[in-house]
Amino acid sequence: MLMPAEVVVNGELIEYYDISGCYILRPWAMSIWETMQKFFDVEIKKMNIQNCYFPLFVSPGVLQKEKDHVEGFAPEVAWVTKTGDSDLEVPIAIRPTSETVMYPYYSKWIRGHRDLPLKLNQWCNVVRWEFSNPTPFIRSREFLWQEGHTAFATKEEADAEVLDILELYRQIYEEYLAVPVVKGKKSELEKFAGGLYTTSVEAFISNNGRGIQGATSHCLGQNFAKMFEINFENEKGQKGMVWQNSWAYSTRTIGVMVMVHGDDKGLVLPPKVATVQVIIIPVPYKDADTRGIFDACASAVDILSGAGIRAKADFRDNYSPGWKYSHWEMKGVPLRIEIGPKDLANSQVRVVRRDNSLKIDISRTNLVEHVKEMLNNIQHNLFDVAKQKRDACVKTIRTWDEFVEALSQKKLILAPWCDEEEVEKGVKARTKGEMGAAKSLCSPFDQPELPEGTKCFASGKPAKKWTYWGRSY
Amino acid sequence: MLMPAEVVVNGELIEYYDISGCYILRPWAMSIWETMQKFFDVEIKKMNIQNCYFPLFVSPGVLQKEKDHVEGFAPEVAWVTKTGDSDLEVPIAIRPTSETVMYPYYSKWIRGHRDLPLKLNQWCNVVRWEFSNPTPFIRSREFLWQEGHTAFATKEEADAEVLDILELYRQIYEEYLAVPVVKGKKSELEKFAGGLYTTSVEAFISNNGRGIQGATSHCLGQNFAKMFEINFENEKGQKGMVWQNSWAYSTRTIGVMVMVHGDDKGLVLPPKVATVQVIIIPVPYKDADTRGIFDACASAVDILSGAGIRAKADFRDNYSPGWKYSHWEMKGVPLRIEIGPKDLANSQVRVVRRDNSLKIDISRTNLVEHVKEMLNNIQHNLFDVAKQKRDACVKTIRTWDEFVEALSQKKLILAPWCDEEEVEKGVKARTKGEMGAAKSLCSPFDQPELPEGTKCFASGKPAKKWTYWGRSY
Repeated sequence: MLMPAEVVVNGELIEYYDISGCYILRPWAMSIWETMQKFFDVEIKKMNIQNCYFPLFVSPGVLQKEKDHVEGFAPEVAWVTKTGDSDLEVPIAIRPTSETVMYPYYSKWIRGHRDLPLKLNQWCNVVRWEFSNPTPFIRSREFLWQEGHTAFATKEEADAEVLDILELYRQIYEEYLAVPVVKGKKSELEKFAGGLYTTSVEAFISNNGRGIQGATSHCLGQNFAKMFEINFENEKGQKGMVWQNSWAYSTRTIGVMVMVHGDDKGLVLPPKVATVQVIIIPVPYKDADTRGIFDACASAVDILSGAGIRAKADFRDNYSPGWKYSHWEMKGVPLRIEIGPKDLANSQVRVVRRDNSLKIDISRTNLVEHVKEMLNNIQHNLFDVAKQKRDACVKTIRTWDEFVEALSQKKLILAPWCDEEEVEKGVKARTKGEMGAAKSLCSPFDQPELPEGTKCFASGKPAKKWTYWGRSY
Repeated sequence: MLMPAEVVVNGELIEYYDISGCYILRPWAMSIWETMQKFFDVEIKKMNIQNCYFPLFVSPGVLQKEKDHVEGFAPEVAWVTKTGDSDLEVPIAIRPTSETVMYPYYSKWIRGHRDLPLKLNQWCNVVRWEFSNPTPFIRSREFLWQEGHTAFATKEEADAEVLDILELYRQIYEEYLAVPVVKGKKSELEKFAGGLYTTSVEAFISNNGRGIQGATSHCLGQNFAKMFEINFENEKGQKGMVWQNSWAYSTRTIGVMVMVHGDDKGLVLPPKVATVQVIIIPVPYKDADTRGIFDACASAVDILSGAGIRAKADFRDNYSPGWKYSHWEMKGVPLRIEIGPKDLANSQVRVVRRDNSLKIDISRTNLVEHVKEMLNNIQHNLFDVAKQKRDACVKTIRTWDEFVEALSQKKLILAPWCDEEEVEKGVKARTKGEMGAAKSLCSPFDQPELPEGTKCFASGKPAKKWTYWGRSY
């Protein structure tokens, strides 16, 4: 499952828009986004992070203040040069991310240690005019995200928050989207432009052997503080510069979920994020008690909804049951309940799982308990299956030849590395080709043992750490 | 209280931004927005309206499809003409509102009567590059809003929804922001560009005698359906065109609240939307039991928070109690609790209301009940006082001379009107001047009796209805 346009369009997550690289998020996608948003927003508020909203527009002066940062984003920035019929005196940029939008005001608001920490977040849209292969969710020219921007008196506090946020991102992927991820640190080459270090959760799409960055939590160090003069006076009256973090996850999360779980029939949605968890379909044969069947369906919806399960019946009379099965499979609904004459007679319903097609008949007496248990099983099974698939793709290698072979097999490659930027550039150069170059994905926090004397797979120098490598989105 | 920049800046709702007409919504404003959003989002979901997200960008072709509509918005549209270093082949517009963004897809999604009603909403930012006096919240070049866009098979359904939504807008103003509003219908001249008719909730700022449109719920009729070919086949196989509505409220709501309740000391926030409802300030005199006072403050926070009241203590040691009183008054916190040595000794606290400065000592035994009751009283008192002020400004007139006099007295003028567009244009032309022309605000749904033979105040023709007139924002 590669994320063909068909799956996301037929599943009614996305509609293609008449401006290339922009997509419409339909309610079926939006409700998934809202479920994750609700979880994350509550968690960050517990951490005393407050929501705010900064403008969409950036003036060129501030955008260009941090050199590495602007170099990273400049090619993708969209510029407003005209309003109504008038040309603007100075063009203004649309935010690709909001470091430069926000930090001049951090400088204004932060004076003393009592103003710290300053912890803000915003839910908004950003624009990055990418030229290579726009793809729904994964690489779109406008997308929705949250971006957190925090400032601390000490590096220790910043370091700790980077990991607290990364853990929330892991939870979004693993506990909501049922997508296994690796927590780790990005290489110098792959870190955030202008930051000190970047941590990320990395997912892997087994079917086409590519890694994908799931979400990032950056420690910006004091680089931006220096450029934007974000200083404060500590308890002893000494001047200091703040330590900053920024962190974000976007609608890309939904794309990763689609690619990891989708199959030939279409979407497969984990129950925790599915708009509709149970679709109930009446199956009246010719001489059946149609009224009785419809009533049984309606009553099942009531009973399940009353127990907090998101259930819905499809009573449309212009489609056959078979058409409806395919339709709701395409949309990825986790459980289907069928009620026909035999089910009615036996006070039972037939339940069909989307994830593994298992069919069982269950008594209507214990409907709620059974459905809850099955939804729970599906959530866990999706994660387990995805993890098995991902783990089966991991290949530990030690030499360049092994690396090249594993890459040709589309593996998620775990290799001992010297952690030198020039060496990573070399790996990229040597693997360039039609499929795209290989790069480092992350150095996992959970490091296997590295025996003394282990050499870097690419340079032969002493290895410093185990790092995941592969092609990526 | 005119909404001087100082009030919203000192109250920490807004920070001015380096691009004119754009403002930063600080957490103190954002949490008010979120409270209203939470209420409204739940209500529209009960009405089976679903959230979605359409792109920020519009191509010029669709933007220009509805003639009246584009004429209304064209002068304020911001254009992206460049990305990175490259000029775009065709410039693209930033949405000033999303009718033209969405409706080509409504045309695609709606085929038969079973696809109706289609009811979507989105929470997003829009850009209108206004050139006249940008003002925080009231007239800003980018703002946040929700925009609902619905399509029905019949006019009756559309008409009914227009009023259901308008009622929610009334609730936001009256029950959350404690701002009295009039529900009514806009004149032909003032209705939404391209729509059939517009309803609105109208507020009035007594201090400077101006009306302000609070939120609008439009019936678009079939105008857009015709332009965008949104057709469907009904039960009998006949072709029809849909009836559409669009409706929106924006961060302007916060500005109206600021202007209606604010005073010389700063903001006054209604308890239902205040981020902090109760601020607790320790008042330790020289020889006081400082530790005991601080503990009492902390315990009061715990007790109130435990009861679901948003309470906070200000323990900062570098500010005097007096400074803190002013600070939290400026930020509009509804209730202040002071705890000093005498209060500690008597197991009481001193409570001071922001709305009317009343001070009372209450026993710590019934703290929660007392505070709840007082917050409730403040909420109602703010509304009552605002309504009295507004009502005192209403002037019913019958002749042009009376109209001119009432206008010079900055009244909210209720006048019998013939409801003719040319006559309204005449009123505007005749009242032009430094203060801005008078215009119709709305014809209230709640119409006083109109005796037979009553003449229009402006044209002398037979009057058709009572209409509110005045200067407005």
